[in-house]
Amino acid sequence: MATIQSIRANCRKVMCIGRNYADHVKELNNNKPKQPFFFLKPPSSILLPGAGPVLAPRGVSMHYEVELGLVIGKTIRDLRKDNTQGALDAIEGYLLAIDMTGRNVQEEAKKKGLPWSIAKGFDTFLPISNFIPKSRIPDPQNAQLWLSVNNDLKQSDNTELMIFRIPRQLADISQVMTLEKGDIVLTGTPKGVGPVKPGDIMRAGLKVNGRDIEEASIEVP
Amino acid sequence: MATIQSIRANCRKVMCIGRNYADHVKELNNNKPKQPFFFLKPPSSILLPGAGPVLAPRGVSMHYEVELGLVIGKTIRDLRKDNTQGALDAIEGYLLAIDMTGRNVQEEAKKKGLPWSIAKGFDTFLPISNFIPKSRIPDPQNAQLWLSVNNDLKQSDNTELMIFRIPRQLADISQVMTLEKGDIVLTGTPKGVGPVKPGDIMRAGLKVNGRDIEEASIEVP
Ligand SMILES: [Mg+2]
Ligand SMILES: [Mg+2]
Ligand SMILES: [Mg+2]
Repeated sequence: MATIQSIRANCRKVMCIGRNYADHVKELNNNKPKQPFFFLKPPSSILLPGAGPVLAPRGVSMHYEVELGLVIGKTIRDLRKDNTQGALDAIEGYLLAIDMTGRNVQEEAKKKGLPWSIAKGFDTFLPISNFIPKSRIPDPQNAQLWLSVNNDLKQSDNTELMIFRIPRQLADISQVMTLEKGDIVLTGTPKGVGPVKPGDIMRAGLKVNGRDIEEASIEVP
Repeated sequence: MATIQSIRANCRKVMCIGRNYADHVKELNNNKPKQPFFFLKPPSSILLPGAGPVLAPRGVSMHYEVELGLVIGKTIRDLRKDNTQGALDAIEGYLLAIDMTGRNVQEEAKKKGLPWSIAKGFDTFLPISNFIPKSRIPDPQNAQLWLSVNNDLKQSDNTELMIFRIPRQLADISQVMTLEKGDIVLTGTPKGVGPVKPGDIMRAGLKVNGRDIEEASIEVP
């Protein structure tokens, strides 16, 4: 069984999809994408359970984005879009993640046509849960993601609302770059993103059939 | 001594600076940046010596960008801009690299404010040389980079022309994200970038005191 420490130690690439839930696309005044687009976060941004807090760089407005993460179990390259079984077979397990974003840094980058790597890549900008064994989530397109700030529920939506489903995501990524064992894929965030400041407490979790999965729990001061 | 195979196998992050030579900034009609900006390439894009060719994805216009690469030898975090010695001490050695870029994909991303990760991240989009021991380049700000396509010299400039020098780059990166042993930093490309198509032969090298460094030689069909 993968431990979350070994996942952090071995992860070489964190690939994240943007704008993958329609209501989240609207809340940021973005256009609904015709095809998935992706960006990288560096493995150095991973924050292990209990290793918090998230560190706010000076002048950076931090936003949370709760997301279902896939831990890749084997090499995939040029996966076909209709190869649903191939996609599911490539998943070793899951984790819950908060894709922390320097929103003002990202807005500035978008305006200037610059890369997102800094806005997304600060140290501690990727709090993750423990490793979630595959068997805990029988259908990754039917799980409820939630996130609260200071016990106020901010995000709560089902992964069935993804615009591009997991097999399509893995197909599109793997046609650009090989996915390797240990890579992490973040599948997008539902509506409700917003700012956090130092001292706020974020909690996040994942429910299957109405019950919280123990391994998915995140609490970050 | 690090082998280039072990560098590829252990590399977790490739961080690249954009627009770091004034004449290259002009040739792409960009603005000269007031501060360095960076983007990530995935380790999966590394192409080892002799492992060519570079693969042109369908519909993608590939450009070459020859760059001096730094192989990081130890953890650095929050390095100060004036800590030149600290920066040089963090470098384990060098490599020469070609930062292949899907220029049309990048232009589209810039127009739409989207990330650069796909334009920069295709498999084979980072041909590298063998590992260059540190002693071979006594002053990394005084080395001549060159690149030819089908024996036509396209790029040839000295690293003294960098807008932001290496200590400043490592300071700025390490204030955003921790640099770890095995990470690679690409220091920007001089003027002369341009397209290559399948079948073209790229050669690149690095001269110190007018003589080519053997380990820096790249030849990619
Ligand atoms: Mg996100
Ligand atoms: Mg990017
Ligand atoms: Mg470049």
